Amino acid sequence: MTMDSKPLFGKVALLGIGLIGSSMAHAMRRAGLAAHIAGFARNPETLDAAERIGFADSLHDDPRAAVRDADFVVLATPVGAFAELAKEIAPHLKRGAIVSDAGSVKTAVIGAVAPYLPQGVHFVPAHPIAGTEQSGPEAGFAELFDGRWCVLTPAAGTDSQAIETVKTFWRRCGSEVETMDAKHHDLVLAITSHVPHLIAYNIVGTADDLEAVTQGEVIKYSAGGFRDFTRIAASDPTMWRDVFLNNREAVLEMLGRFTEDLTALQRAIRWGDGETLFNLFTRTRAIRRSIIDAGQDTAAPNFGRSRARRS
Amino acid sequence: MTMDSKPLFGKVALLGIGLIGSSMAHAMRRAGLAAHIAGFARNPETLDAAERIGFADSLHDDPRAAVRDADFVVLATPVGAFAELAKEIAPHLKRGAIVSDAGSVKTAVIGAVAPYLPQGVHFVPAHPIAGTEQSGPEAGFAELFDGRWCVLTPAAGTDSQAIETVKTFWRRCGSEVETMDAKHHDLVLAITSHVPHLIAYNIVGTADDLEAVTQGEVIKYSAGGFRDFTRIAASDPTMWRDVFLNNREAVLEMLGRFTEDLTALQRAIRWGDGETLFNLFTRTRAIRRSIIDAGQDTAAPNFGRSRARRS
Repeated sequence: MTMDSKPLFGKVALLGIGLIGSSMAHAMRRAGLAAHIAGFARNPETLDAAERIGFADSLHDDPRAAVRDADFVVLATPVGAFAELAKEIAPHLKRGAIVSDAGSVKTAVIGAVAPYLPQGVHFVPAHPIAGTEQSGPEAGFAELFDGRWCVLTPAAGTDSQAIETVKTFWRRCGSEVETMDAKHHDLVLAITSHVPHLIAYNIVGTADDLEAVTQGEVIKYSAGGFRDFTRIAASDPTMWRDVFLNNREAVLEMLGRFTEDLTALQRAIRWGDGETLFNLFTRTRAIRRSIIDAGQDTAAPNFGRSRARRS
Repeated sequence: MTMDSKPLFGKVALLGIGLIGSSMAHAMRRAGLAAHIAGFARNPETLDAAERIGFADSLHDDPRAAVRDADFVVLATPVGAFAELAKEIAPHLKRGAIVSDAGSVKTAVIGAVAPYLPQGVHFVPAHPIAGTEQSGPEAGFAELFDGRWCVLTPAAGTDSQAIETVKTFWRRCGSEVETMDAKHHDLVLAITSHVPHLIAYNIVGTADDLEAVTQGEVIKYSAGGFRDFTRIAASDPTMWRDVFLNNREAVLEMLGRFTEDLTALQRAIRWGDGETLFNLFTRTRAIRRSIIDAGQDTAAPNFGRSRARRS
């Protein structure tokens, strides 16, 4: 990480200072990206925690105050709150400001935010593909985005200088940057993130509901595979509710395929078709190897996942 | 780990020296549990690797030679090979020997093995709930069983001294030991291990089959959750084929519940029922906390999973 003498932005407003917003603040500090970091949260406890940790230069319970004179405004709350936030801040945005976000869905976010933004404000939607199962301002850490991808989904005709600035921002936060069509992003993330979360939540719920197996047994013997699902299923409930409500079409499409394939596997088990099982299990092993080769998994602690500073 | 002056067994025969068998050899060496460790594999490459690593005192391509004069015989191949192995070794077992196994299913294993065992040989089925996605003799390491559960499922009327000896064996390999009815074991493992593996294999297969999303994209953006599933879906294909074929009833039962619950979630997404989603996601988070409290997950590297010595 090289520090330039001049920060990329004068003032950055982080609307939402949970895991992602606070990690952005830490990463910005590390790289010297902003002369002033303003944080906004409605919850007083969140603001207290942020003040204690000290990752922001100013803290606000009113988003309008946070965005005043800001050069870069990032929506980092659960996506269900974006439309209201955008509407509230729109009249107070500085001319020439760049508005971005960190939402896990993009088509719905663009539909919720873009209509409110005034002329002369640049909208560059972004999705840093990074996270842990922790949430809140105390979960953030500067290294969260290191080596992870950040996908930008700007509309055609977006100011190219604004796009370049957001790319530079994320690269200096440690990320690699890719640009993609919003609809395609939503499909890619449905299969690589949203459906995996949904089935993890689902199996943990199923296990919790059993009568024949006690919850104590499920917990005690979770090392056989279940444990890994519970980690994913511990992710922030509000954030994930909003993801599913806002990427409905792509999630249902991918879920339909998942279920179809699962039905075929169920049939193979019922009929004792070992060959079908063996062939699938061999194919999936090869995909794992590709992920390791691509550097998206490592032998490092925590399987390459960035670790929360405190847990 | 305390070393007694006298080993628990004179000779131990490990029939199968992949991840589990070789880890047992390492753990036995660490605790001084056997005067002689005999290893059996049919594959010459496996035998070569075992010889290179040196975790066994003798290596055999004939199971009958491996079990000769052995006090403790452990079946540690994929469970589909157990019946044939049991039939082959039965006439060569020492009177008073204890036969055990490391299979992930128990009812089918008992049905496959018990009928072949002669009078005067004690059968104490066992399932060490530990593993990694690695396989083969080079994947084994002494710490694999440390702090993990090993479940014994002896039939009623089994010699209590033999059961005690197997308990001592596993405790000195680092495990905690529980005794359970075989049928109940299979149900517990279906939900905590078998169905989680099946859905991990399934989603990785689904992702591999998509046309709208390239395999390159799936790999590149796997950090959003998918990556964790690929690790599970990289587990040994033969072992897992045999698990599903041999725990069919319990797996289909649990899979039926999983699918039913998933259909309800799908419906909640389609109808925009955020409350159902939020309530489930909150409930699953609490279960994660229980697993951490139970010490079955930790903040340690690799989320408490024992790490392969080489990867």
